[in-house]
Amino acid sequence: MKVFKFSLRVRYTETDQMQVAYYGSYFVWFEVARTEAFRELGLEYSKLEEEGFCLMVVQANCQYEAPCKYDDLIAIHTTISEVKNSSLSFDYQVYKDAKLLATGKTTHVFCNKKGKPVRMPHKIRGLINKI
Amino acid sequence: MKVFKFSLRVRYTETDQMQVAYYGSYFVWFEVARTEAFRELGLEYSKLEEEGFCLMVVQANCQYEAPCKYDDLIAIHTTISEVKNSSLSFDYQVYKDAKLLATGKTTHVFCNKKGKPVRMPHKIRGLINKI
Amino acid sequence: MKVFKFSLRVRYTETDQMQVAYYGSYFVWFEVARTEAFRELGLEYSKLEEEGFCLMVVQANCQYEAPCKYDDLIAIHTTISEVKNSSLSFDYQVYKDAKLLATGKTTHVFCNKKGKPVRMPHKIRGLINKI
Amino acid sequence: MKVFKFSLRVRYTETDQMQVAYYGSYFVWFEVARTEAFRELGLEYSKLEEEGFCLMVVQANCQYEAPCKYDDLIAIHTTISEVKNSSLSFDYQVYKDAKLLATGKTTHVFCNKKGKPVRMPHKIRGLINKI
Repeated sequence: MKVFKFSLRVRYTETDQMQVAYYGSYFVWFEVARTEAFRELGLEYSKLEEEGFCLMVVQANCQYEAPCKYDDLIAIHTTISEVKNSSLSFDYQVYKDAKLLATGKTTHVFCNKKGKPVRMPHKIRGLINKI
Repeated sequence: MKVFKFSLRVRYTETDQMQVAYYGSYFVWFEVARTEAFRELGLEYSKLEEEGFCLMVVQANCQYEAPCKYDDLIAIHTTISEVKNSSLSFDYQVYKDAKLLATGKTTHVFCNKKGKPVRMPHKIRGLINKI
Repeated sequence: MKVFKFSLRVRYTETDQMQVAYYGSYFVWFEVARTEAFRELGLEYSKLEEEGFCLMVVQANCQYEAPCKYDDLIAIHTTISEVKNSSLSFDYQVYKDAKLLATGKTTHVFCNKKGKPVRMPHKIRGLINKI
Repeated sequence: MKVFKFSLRVRYTETDQMQVAYYGSYFVWFEVARTEAFRELGLEYSKLEEEGFCLMVVQANCQYEAPCKYDDLIAIHTTISEVKNSSLSFDYQVYKDAKLLATGKTTHVFCNKKGKPVRMPHKIRGLINKI
């Protein structure tokens, strides 16, 4: 299973008064990690939307193991964990150095511009099959 | 089971280029709903933090049933679904009128200022038992 | 000059590790205050966009006088401070009780769907003239 | 005048239903650019806060020249434009390739942990003087 890796720094705005990253920030990082996984796969997600498709999220979760702080350099490891006719699931692991901070999962359905579910575009299936 | 109800309007900043609310926005709304549930319970969460406690999130998830849009007036129905020695879980249902848009759940551990888990403060247990 | 007033509570996500509201949050509140000012004026901004117009921001500023905290109930006083052929400016004052926390200003140009500047829609000019 | 340069990609969450970056996102990018300017100056802003100082923002503004979109790679050019006894101002220019998208300015006062203004820490003045 290919692991897509992307690093980012925790932004000041992503912290809250508990002085750690806000729990909602992780879902933003998952989104950034997906964008970068698509790019590494050879497909820009922005292009996908220009072609009339979108990936509507149907489920998202996160387990928080340890907090992270402003300016921490964290790594997000992303895998495509499930491929169905019209949906994709991603698993995420968030690390600071070797320490696991959080794990997450999101599931997305391919939709057309009207928000109706459609089969996964051929091009994407091809790229995923090559992983 | 007492249902705490709170309504809010989807903000422009909470939308994304798919022209619906961003998936991470729901976790912000869950947080707002928790704050208001605590207030209705007779306890301001801000006071709880002033007294040296905090509620560290350990798990969060959301299932998305239907999208919502800018300026939609949505209602969040919150219940306290699990009470343990040092943790609380909340269930959420997001509605637009009678239509269910999303369901979610978060679990939180009571911690002291150093982030160490502690037993649920007596006062809170008392208020929850009275529901 | 009509003053549109709207109150909101500072959300947890809007705080940062300085334990006050993040400086960028004020621009979100200005946006919420504009939406509510339009509604009070008799015009839903969402409808305006459905009719093919949008208000593109060209300038935004904020002066910060005193910080605010999580769960503070703040009031935003909004006035339409400048009306030109194709642009509008709003002035904002943010209060906690009688205390002024911040002042701000934003300027917006009416655009069509392609982002080209257009004259202010007739209907809006009419509503503004009646203030 | 030293120009600190930092690049980032527009995140999906930073867009809004106008399908361009939300106006408040620019202030987040300014904050990221400041963090990176401090790092390049030889000083981590997170360390500064650990030592009991903070930089409270007193003024922020942005002029928007042209919109940017999801996944655009933008560069933020930051200069320290004003140095006073207890305050610092930063100027920002946001570019996509050679095209200027926005300019901005923020002013910050050095404060102690209680939020009282203090003189700029010696170490910082030294680093700034060396630019």
